[in-house]
Amino acid sequence: MDIVFIGAGNLATRLSAIMIEQGYNIIQIYSKNLQNAKALGTSLSCAYTDDLSQIKDSADLYIFSVKDTVLQECIQSVKPNKALWVHTAGSIPMSVFESHIERYGVFYPLQTFSKDKKVNFSNIPFFIEANSEKDSQLLINIASRISQDVRVVSSEQRKYIHLAAVFACNFTNHMYAISAKLLEDHDLPFDVLLPLIQETADKVTKMSPVAAQTGPAVRYDENVMDKQLFLLEDNRLKEIYKLLSKSIHTFATNMSYEQNKL
Amino acid sequence: MDIVFIGAGNLATRLSAIMIEQGYNIIQIYSKNLQNAKALGTSLSCAYTDDLSQIKDSADLYIFSVKDTVLQECIQSVKPNKALWVHTAGSIPMSVFESHIERYGVFYPLQTFSKDKKVNFSNIPFFIEANSEKDSQLLINIASRISQDVRVVSSEQRKYIHLAAVFACNFTNHMYAISAKLLEDHDLPFDVLLPLIQETADKVTKMSPVAAQTGPAVRYDENVMDKQLFLLEDNRLKEIYKLLSKSIHTFATNMSYEQNKL
Repeated sequence: MDIVFIGAGNLATRLSAIMIEQGYNIIQIYSKNLQNAKALGTSLSCAYTDDLSQIKDSADLYIFSVKDTVLQECIQSVKPNKALWVHTAGSIPMSVFESHIERYGVFYPLQTFSKDKKVNFSNIPFFIEANSEKDSQLLINIASRISQDVRVVSSEQRKYIHLAAVFACNFTNHMYAISAKLLEDHDLPFDVLLPLIQETADKVTKMSPVAAQTGPAVRYDENVMDKQLFLLEDNRLKEIYKLLSKSIHTFATNMSYEQNKL
Repeated sequence: MDIVFIGAGNLATRLSAIMIEQGYNIIQIYSKNLQNAKALGTSLSCAYTDDLSQIKDSADLYIFSVKDTVLQECIQSVKPNKALWVHTAGSIPMSVFESHIERYGVFYPLQTFSKDKKVNFSNIPFFIEANSEKDSQLLINIASRISQDVRVVSSEQRKYIHLAAVFACNFTNHMYAISAKLLEDHDLPFDVLLPLIQETADKVTKMSPVAAQTGPAVRYDENVMDKQLFLLEDNRLKEIYKLLSKSIHTFATNMSYEQNKL
């Protein structure tokens, strides 16, 4: 199976690498940035281009892995053919393809990718959607060679998966960034937090997040919270502290039963 | 060495268990809740009480591990003696002991504890403080039998460590709780997020949190962010989404150099 990647970012870099490992034949990489196209194309020993009109017509599968904002425009700029076209975006409905191409779908691996960090693909959930049963099965087969966790979901459900991922990954990572800054500002090393960060992530594999919640906000210990607010000099960090503490307390008091069922 | 624990909560439960494993002799557990005192005392095969006036006078070390709000009152209610008294609270200065007792200090393990979940103590940072060099060394020796990471810090630094931990653990866990709720509300299982949560925690062992940041807010992709805000029905969650997205963008634009040094 011959594959073209449209995109050379974090996701495209890691996904193309694992697909090569699994024996797929990647024949071309596109990026609007020629340096990025070249870097990835060279590392995969395949052709590369920064010109959408030069995308090869002979592939079996086209994987669009570009920023959400430019996805539609990219799709419209590639000449339609009989192959299967998919995108890898959590928030974009499958219908983005429908006026342009006959066979299309979505191939969404739920993970945070960085170009330089290998990830273990075997347990990454792949969310699949296609406009025909046959292509849905084809995408399931491809994903199943990469991961043990392949699920078919609608565009509507996928939007909520992506939204949940923003909280569980992007916002979580920002909590780490704030804690790193607080330590750095007081000449303390970030690595003291790593066992805590690891255990916090590990706990929710064993119990629901609401059951796992600890700290001053869940006890609504205003004495500690007021003292901590006083330590925060930045107004936005104060706002974040207050808003999240209130939200923790609301979850702890209103939702403990519901969430403990998880 | 004979030890009395004042407190039978999450931290006292896990810390007393590891101290028994390391050969320390725990002679008594206090909790204001007799059921809790009995449960922990029985599991450790030692005496227990819910009466602070009944605390045994013969121990070498008294570990106060109670809520911050009641710590001072607890200390004042136990008869002074010649032993070493410590507390395990991140936010409370060592001076809480000074008017009451001669030998005192702090023994603060930086971790999130739950009664029912064992943790690996060997890499948990222990932050030590004492009012004499001799007792500081004694606490270092005790902590070193439990963990490889023992550090002496001042009460002032410890406050910032605790504040950073609230972000890295308590607020992070709340991000998980919100994501679990969003999935549950749309009939999706929380476990699809576990590999993402694990990788997000793992990434910051290899790079700084600012370098690890991904998602719509770091790109400031308003198209995606507006659509995600629309999906959030709860006003407080909308507020959290907006505030954290702005903060991520500020960190990404202003602080990338500084933070990448981490």
